[in-house]
Amino acid sequence: MSEPATALRNDTFLRACLREPTAYTPLWLMRQAGRYLPEYNATRARAGSFMGLATNPDFATEVTLQPLERWPLDAAILFSDILTVPDAMGLGLSFAAGEGPRFAHPVRDEAAVARLAVPDLARLRYVFDAVRSIRKALAGRVPLIGFSGSPWTLACYMVEGAGSDDYRTVKTMLYARPDLLHRILDINAQAVAAYLNAQIDAGAQAVMVFDSWGGVLADAAFRTFSLRYTRAVVRQLKREAEGRRVPCIVFTKGGGGWLEEIAEPAEGGGADVIGLDWTTDLGRARKRIDDRVALQGNLDPTVLFAPPAVVAAEARAVLDSFGAAKRPDGRHGGHVFNLGHGISQFTPPEHVAALVEAVHGHSRRSRNAT
Amino acid sequence: MSEPATALRNDTFLRACLREPTAYTPLWLMRQAGRYLPEYNATRARAGSFMGLATNPDFATEVTLQPLERWPLDAAILFSDILTVPDAMGLGLSFAAGEGPRFAHPVRDEAAVARLAVPDLARLRYVFDAVRSIRKALAGRVPLIGFSGSPWTLACYMVEGAGSDDYRTVKTMLYARPDLLHRILDINAQAVAAYLNAQIDAGAQAVMVFDSWGGVLADAAFRTFSLRYTRAVVRQLKREAEGRRVPCIVFTKGGGGWLEEIAEPAEGGGADVIGLDWTTDLGRARKRIDDRVALQGNLDPTVLFAPPAVVAAEARAVLDSFGAAKRPDGRHGGHVFNLGHGISQFTPPEHVAALVEAVHGHSRRSRNAT
Repeated sequence: MSEPATALRNDTFLRACLREPTAYTPLWLMRQAGRYLPEYNATRARAGSFMGLATNPDFATEVTLQPLERWPLDAAILFSDILTVPDAMGLGLSFAAGEGPRFAHPVRDEAAVARLAVPDLARLRYVFDAVRSIRKALAGRVPLIGFSGSPWTLACYMVEGAGSDDYRTVKTMLYARPDLLHRILDINAQAVAAYLNAQIDAGAQAVMVFDSWGGVLADAAFRTFSLRYTRAVVRQLKREAEGRRVPCIVFTKGGGGWLEEIAEPAEGGGADVIGLDWTTDLGRARKRIDDRVALQGNLDPTVLFAPPAVVAAEARAVLDSFGAAKRPDGRHGGHVFNLGHGISQFTPPEHVAALVEAVHGHSRRSRNAT
Repeated sequence: MSEPATALRNDTFLRACLREPTAYTPLWLMRQAGRYLPEYNATRARAGSFMGLATNPDFATEVTLQPLERWPLDAAILFSDILTVPDAMGLGLSFAAGEGPRFAHPVRDEAAVARLAVPDLARLRYVFDAVRSIRKALAGRVPLIGFSGSPWTLACYMVEGAGSDDYRTVKTMLYARPDLLHRILDINAQAVAAYLNAQIDAGAQAVMVFDSWGGVLADAAFRTFSLRYTRAVVRQLKREAEGRRVPCIVFTKGGGGWLEEIAEPAEGGGADVIGLDWTTDLGRARKRIDDRVALQGNLDPTVLFAPPAVVAAEARAVLDSFGAAKRPDGRHGGHVFNLGHGISQFTPPEHVAALVEAVHGHSRRSRNAT
């Protein structure tokens, strides 16, 4: 368990996740601690490699706080990777320069699947140490979000051994040997749930499950091989810590078409917040789920390449598409502003300043106007 | 105009496009004449390059007919590329070995946009010659589909100069200089409409607009920069030739969320058929649009890597998801079976045999059973 918590000075993010009234719309950015920041690149150079950075709690703390030093973001997110769990299973995660993740030992046949097991959480101690260290450094400034890849998204990389254009290897397993894939997913779901709960024990005040590749699946396959296991994770999560609810966010990239299915009511054990990419209009999404859960998103990250005035206008358009959180019937929707995908490494940091100001300013003015 | 048409012996595809009763569900496969066929690779080797193949009507005819020699597919599709129009604008299309398309002269600034013009269709004569030659070779066996990329999809390649992971350059133009992009799209829409009408004049019996990259756009941007211009193309199309309606198919990869908007009634000048990728369930799609248009799709092409028995089962599942074309109220839906994306070059051809047999056999049995 974490040390007695310092009082949280800004709980706007947590309140929006739970559809409680807030003075403005909180925002944070996926991959907010990342390569678009010169100070991040400097720390990474000192760490030697991405994994050198992620596995060292001091470095992880330093980079997690960097974007918060620049802008009044409403949440911090643990600096780590979505693939730490399969790395702890012994698959050998690495990041070659300029490339995505790679596993030295992909899981492709019956024997490799038989060898898989839920990893000893002691192997992920560096993550929990980082959570504790970041909480201390944050000192109650904003809440800290923990995270993991979803069981399906982990399986994509575990079977392919790397990213893919078409996920042919893992989908071939899905169609030809669903029994093998179900075993991988079952182990992943147990491991991810235990891992997120350990992050919560260490001090994570919200958790997010990234189903980055749910959107590559056919409709029926998504339900059977992605959603089912994401739900299994969410249902096993601790939902309270330090006397507060720990919101759970589920983000399925390309999953807008399945919003009704993903948005299982939180009261029934589902997520509190659903992340959406930019292809789905937030206002129509709210109507489809009748504000049963909060929504997170969904500015196209490429908007940040446009001039600051355009960034501000597009940010306002996203806020306006969600509309007033308070409904005519007195209930509340919840909106956490974010991008619809991680921020690009080529983003000019000063455009982020325009974004933060527009989101906070416009949402505050809109609430005051009504 | 084409020569007097030979009577069409198999019009199942055309009838399904128009939601007329058929004895079975017709099928064809996007990229059915392609690298997964050894005979295609042999012809391509003789032609020297992809463009050498596409610009020679004899070669184009040869490869267009190759898949039909193997299997009783219900339509032929012109062998060509979605990017012939910008090539005719002088942008210099090429295909490096193992890579996607590339333009020597991308359109990225005000001066380049100012130079753009609707190309002289004489520069695309090789395409119309190929259409005439293929129609002759088909001799009424099945209908021939002509096609082009959508205005937005052409613009993606014209501005980026090649494929992209994030379409950052064209999206930056979209947000920062929408005036430039609108000019490109307006020229593209005029050019694509004229090009497709010339294909129809040469003998194309249906036409398809590929909006391959509509799905990368934010909701509002899709409506403004993709759908609006696709509609402009469709509204300008000749819809009758040789005494028959020429159906128009619109396929937006990743566009399932916008189905209601894309499915403008054909009577109002919209497409007759909407193509869907595998993320959307056909049965639910039908309900959403109340069978106002026919649907084309939507097997995940990676299913073709599974054993033939699985391919057959998944094909039946797609047919069953659409359900009976005839509705209780006596009206008909229309279903053209296809993949949800082009067939992979790594597909074993014998798995395609299993697919064709399953689609024809199962759909015929289902109709007889009801």
